[in-house]
Amino acid sequence: MRVVLASASPARLRTLRAAGIEPEVIVSHVEEAAFDIADPSDLAVTLARAKAQHVAAGLSPPEALVIGCDSVLDLDGEALGKPVDAADAAARWRRMRGRSGVLVTGHCVVDTASGRQVGAAARTTVHFASVSDAEIDAYVATGEPLQVAGAFTIDGLGGAFVTGLEGDHHNVVGLSLPLLRDLCARLDIAWPRLWR
Amino acid sequence: MRVVLASASPARLRTLRAAGIEPEVIVSHVEEAAFDIADPSDLAVTLARAKAQHVAAGLSPPEALVIGCDSVLDLDGEALGKPVDAADAAARWRRMRGRSGVLVTGHCVVDTASGRQVGAAARTTVHFASVSDAEIDAYVATGEPLQVAGAFTIDGLGGAFVTGLEGDHHNVVGLSLPLLRDLCARLDIAWPRLWR
Repeated sequence: MRVVLASASPARLRTLRAAGIEPEVIVSHVEEAAFDIADPSDLAVTLARAKAQHVAAGLSPPEALVIGCDSVLDLDGEALGKPVDAADAAARWRRMRGRSGVLVTGHCVVDTASGRQVGAAARTTVHFASVSDAEIDAYVATGEPLQVAGAFTIDGLGGAFVTGLEGDHHNVVGLSLPLLRDLCARLDIAWPRLWR
Repeated sequence: MRVVLASASPARLRTLRAAGIEPEVIVSHVEEAAFDIADPSDLAVTLARAKAQHVAAGLSPPEALVIGCDSVLDLDGEALGKPVDAADAAARWRRMRGRSGVLVTGHCVVDTASGRQVGAAARTTVHFASVSDAEIDAYVATGEPLQVAGAFTIDGLGGAFVTGLEGDHHNVVGLSLPLLRDLCARLDIAWPRLWR
C-alpha cells in the first residue's frame, strides 16, 4: 500500500520506519501562522488536515494514503511550538521543570482512492524532571530544544529530563502509531497492510 | 567519562546513544536461569547487579561507570522474559490483548573509581491494544516478538499495538534514562558529564 507522509520531520519518518512502514515524504507548504486557533488540540488537528489535504491534492499518481501531523505542547492551556531562540528555550524549561504538560499531536489520514478522510488528536501527559539551572544551560547549548515543539524531545538528549508519560510515547515524538492504526481501521484498512 | 554498558541489547545501546552517551559494550556472562526469584522487580534488579558486577570485576583499565540492566514483563505478578517459540508468543498476545502489564527494568550502576554502587527498578505500565487474531499471527510471523522480554517492543512493529503507557517509555525499551540520571546523582555524577 502506498503511504505518503506529509511532513518534513525526521522523527516522524523514523517512527514510521521503525514500525515497518516506508512512506514517501512529500512536504506540504502550509503557513502555520495563518491559523488563529487558541485551543491546542483544535489547532493541531486543523494544521494536520491542511497539510494532508495540500499534499493529497498535488499527488501524481493520485492514489495513496496520505498522513498529516502537527504537534504542540499544551502548557496551562497555551499552545507552544518551537522556541524562538536560546533564551526562550531556557525560560520555557525554567517554567516546565518539575511540572507536567500535554504533548498534543493532530493527525489526519486521507485515502485518496476512496476520497475519505479521518482526523483526531492524541494527547500524552509529560512529566518533566526537576532539572538544575546548569542542566538547562547545558541542554540549551546543545541546540536540541530549539528544533522541536515544546523545547524538548524524548528521543534525544531530553530523554533523561522526562521522568514519565501518561499515554502513547510515539505521540510525543510526533506521530501516534496506535491512533494511526485506529484511523486506518476507520478507513477499513487493516494495519499489517501498511508493512513494507 | 568512561561508560560501560554491560548488556548485548542493541535497543539499550540505541537508547544511550540517542541520549548523547557513547558507551563501550562489554557483555556479561550471567546465567539467568541460576536465579530463582519470583518477584519480578527483585529478579530484574538482582540480575542487573550481577551483570554490572561481573563486567566491573573484569575491567582493564578498571576505572569506569558500569551500567547493568535486566527487563521482564510483570503480567499478573508473573515475570515473563522472552517467549520460547512462536506458539508461546501467540498465546502470550492472546492473553495480553486489551489488558495491561508492567514492564520492569532493573538497573545497577557501579562506579569502580569510588567503589560505590546503586541499584533500582523502574516500572512502566503498558496498555496493549485489542489486536485481532490476524494481527497477532502477522506480528508473530515477523519474528520480532520472539527476540524480546514480554513478546513485544514499542520501538518496532509492536509500537502500534501499545495504546499507551504510564511511566518512562525508555524503561520499556530496556533502560530508563531518568532513573539512570537519578542513580548517577546518588553517585555525585552530574548527568551532562556523561554526554560525549
